[in-house]
Amino acid sequence: MADSLNCDLKSLSPLQLFERVTEQGEKVRALKAGKAPKDEIDAAVRMLLSLKLSYKTTTGQDYQAGLPPKDLALINNGTAKEEDEDLVDPWNVQTSNAKGVDYDKLIVRFGSSKIDTDLINRIERAIGQKPHHFLRRGIFFSHRDMDQVLDAYENKKPFYLYTGRGPSSQAMHVGHLIPFLFTKWLQEVFDVPLVIQLTDDEKYLWKDMTIEKAYEYARENAKDIIACGFDINKTFIFSDLDYLGTSAGFYKNIVKVQKHVTFNQVKGIFGFTDSDCIGKISFPAIQAAPSFSSSFPQIFNGKENIQCLIPCAIDQDPYFRMTRDVAPRIGQPKPALLHSVFFPALQGAQTKMSASDPNSSIFLTDTPKQIKTKINKHAFSGGRDTIEEHRKYGGNCDVDVSFMYLTFFLEDDDRLEQLKQAYTSGELLTGELKKVLIETMQPLVAAHQERRKQVTDEIVKQFMTPRKLAFEF
Amino acid sequence: MADSLNCDLKSLSPLQLFERVTEQGEKVRALKAGKAPKDEIDAAVRMLLSLKLSYKTTTGQDYQAGLPPKDLALINNGTAKEEDEDLVDPWNVQTSNAKGVDYDKLIVRFGSSKIDTDLINRIERAIGQKPHHFLRRGIFFSHRDMDQVLDAYENKKPFYLYTGRGPSSQAMHVGHLIPFLFTKWLQEVFDVPLVIQLTDDEKYLWKDMTIEKAYEYARENAKDIIACGFDINKTFIFSDLDYLGTSAGFYKNIVKVQKHVTFNQVKGIFGFTDSDCIGKISFPAIQAAPSFSSSFPQIFNGKENIQCLIPCAIDQDPYFRMTRDVAPRIGQPKPALLHSVFFPALQGAQTKMSASDPNSSIFLTDTPKQIKTKINKHAFSGGRDTIEEHRKYGGNCDVDVSFMYLTFFLEDDDRLEQLKQAYTSGELLTGELKKVLIETMQPLVAAHQERRKQVTDEIVKQFMTPRKLAFEF
Repeated sequence: MADSLNCDLKSLSPLQLFERVTEQGEKVRALKAGKAPKDEIDAAVRMLLSLKLSYKTTTGQDYQAGLPPKDLALINNGTAKEEDEDLVDPWNVQTSNAKGVDYDKLIVRFGSSKIDTDLINRIERAIGQKPHHFLRRGIFFSHRDMDQVLDAYENKKPFYLYTGRGPSSQAMHVGHLIPFLFTKWLQEVFDVPLVIQLTDDEKYLWKDMTIEKAYEYARENAKDIIACGFDINKTFIFSDLDYLGTSAGFYKNIVKVQKHVTFNQVKGIFGFTDSDCIGKISFPAIQAAPSFSSSFPQIFNGKENIQCLIPCAIDQDPYFRMTRDVAPRIGQPKPALLHSVFFPALQGAQTKMSASDPNSSIFLTDTPKQIKTKINKHAFSGGRDTIEEHRKYGGNCDVDVSFMYLTFFLEDDDRLEQLKQAYTSGELLTGELKKVLIETMQPLVAAHQERRKQVTDEIVKQFMTPRKLAFEF
Repeated sequence: MADSLNCDLKSLSPLQLFERVTEQGEKVRALKAGKAPKDEIDAAVRMLLSLKLSYKTTTGQDYQAGLPPKDLALINNGTAKEEDEDLVDPWNVQTSNAKGVDYDKLIVRFGSSKIDTDLINRIERAIGQKPHHFLRRGIFFSHRDMDQVLDAYENKKPFYLYTGRGPSSQAMHVGHLIPFLFTKWLQEVFDVPLVIQLTDDEKYLWKDMTIEKAYEYARENAKDIIACGFDINKTFIFSDLDYLGTSAGFYKNIVKVQKHVTFNQVKGIFGFTDSDCIGKISFPAIQAAPSFSSSFPQIFNGKENIQCLIPCAIDQDPYFRMTRDVAPRIGQPKPALLHSVFFPALQGAQTKMSASDPNSSIFLTDTPKQIKTKINKHAFSGGRDTIEEHRKYGGNCDVDVSFMYLTFFLEDDDRLEQLKQAYTSGELLTGELKKVLIETMQPLVAAHQERRKQVTDEIVKQFMTPRKLAFEF
């Protein structure tokens, strides 16, 4: 019995084992409360001890009630977070450090892998061209299973890209473009299908917003996304509110994920409480399901086992850790991930960017004049208080928001390095650095606006129609 | 401030008030734990006391943590159930009484209304014919807002019927037909559209069953349902796994319900725990949504405010109490209900019928011989131990399962009354009563089998295709 139990338990993930221990603990308590026969209680206690042992063997940690295993324990779970750690989850990014979140620590805590020089070189060899500056500069800094994606690619096996956005307002800022710009590059160099999820249902559930408004924002945001230049023949953009009602494959995957994740798990992962609505509690399955190709039978011809690669900001990782935990249990491959850093607010990397504060970032609707004023007035400077001091001691690029923005948007590596040296040495003044940023952002935003004007309702409709893409499966 | 708060609170349902008190209590605890400033804690405590007062004013009960208001507190919630009470929820029906569940007590506890002679007479006047024997004999014994449905009907306002089934196995027994036989009658006498939900997703979530199997059972069960004689031009049968992926209107209503129900609420209503999967936790919204006509735009031409009437066994009432609580908050009319008693197992009204025990009921696939053997061998008798005693003291129809089954299936009132008197007086022996039941059930089941044979896959497909029905909206 013990042997067959242990054999059984070996196939369980740490989270499943955690669940089993928790359930068995509840059973023991119920038996004791119900004054069950002594031998029955004893048997249940023996089983509990055996489960706890398996848990310890598998995870290397003692079981603690309410504390899911460490590699899944999340930052927003107060008990798991240490005092000086940053808070990072899909709804919060907080740090007390002016340089921003400590990403090396985050990699350790999230259990992901650093994108190192070896991996970047391997990508370069695979695609036969220079990797995107987001990779070279550590803006995409962490991954899960990217090596497997490259294995597949080198063996001519197909994969697809999945990214998304929560359409919380009409106004998108330049930071929102980061995952899309990178995804567009990935799509071009690897030549693969791409699905983009707009979680209008999530925004309806979380915000004080009607369904109609959430759907309207989804369509408006789709225009900005399309304006990044995605190939209409290779890209499917969908609103959950729309697509869930048009694809039986999608709902089937959602309900499969929902069967394999407990409230205990989402409580541990996302910090949900008993007062949260059941829509929030079950939503993670809806963000998980596009990781499985069978959610898109029209694209993949019903094929179930096609590898998925998800480029996203690291705050979305909790959704996909959950997805990766569930995937093997529903017979699906785990999605691979590429994680980006957060885009800083103009006021500094430790402040929160907010769509309701127009001065916290450069918006895609800003005029050249607004861009100039915002940068001059609000961009946090790493320069010195006086020109004399600045010339003498130099500026600090690590906390200077103008320099950070240039890291994202100035593609020329040599120029960026020159600016860094000149600013650090004190040769370049804050006003001069800001001028470079203004001159970089103004044409970039203007060009985006120009492309967005070309995106008609008809084009949005085409992108959002479930259909076959230009690939054979 | 207090005034505007009270004004605000007046519009809240007891459950919403309960939620507000719970949340405020959590806030006070968090403030205290976080050592917040004293005035902030004091303000939060004052608010808590004010909320508790409103709760008491509205519900007439003191607030108790974890105990939702009485009219919504459910039987399966251990703390709310008294020792001698029956257990009735969508997954359990338990009673220690050989006569079965005490339905009068259930009406009081569920807060529904008894179907009395006045209501039955009013139905008779409205439809201009004798009400179904299920109504005359108290098989449908309880309702919510049936008077409003009749008001609407008398004013030529449209309504529609909604019922359903969880397709847990291929095998349906005669008890499963009760809601369908009654619904068919309602559809005929009122001439209204009917939607029938097959909750294959629920069965997948609750049982050890694949999605494919659950969907197969749904289609098989649909054949038995269609064989009851529903009008194909007036009836839409749907599997959740199918229809959710074909109707944006349905998913929108689901997500609206999911936004307005918390985990605390479903915990109170359905007894869910933290170890339950998130699919179960959010499922009640999926059974709720067909109560709103906008879930069926193809039938109702997108109209949102059409009254729904749900005939179902009383164990399904928790779903619809929840639905009725949510409806006004999402701008929809509350569904009305007609509740039936439970169909007893052959072994007696206090035992559980089980699809896995073929002897617990008469199945729709039974041969005449199987029916005869089952009734003779297993039908619990209210007769006396010896013929002499029986002749002297008479049998007890209140606990005799053969007599109970005849109440359901023998339409002739006079004959039933004669049998009752003869059995009670001792004139009729158990074997003779069983013979009447055998002779009633054999042709009934055979006729069903004959009709079921006519139900081709093509007919099932037609019933299950979202389409306009023979009504104008």
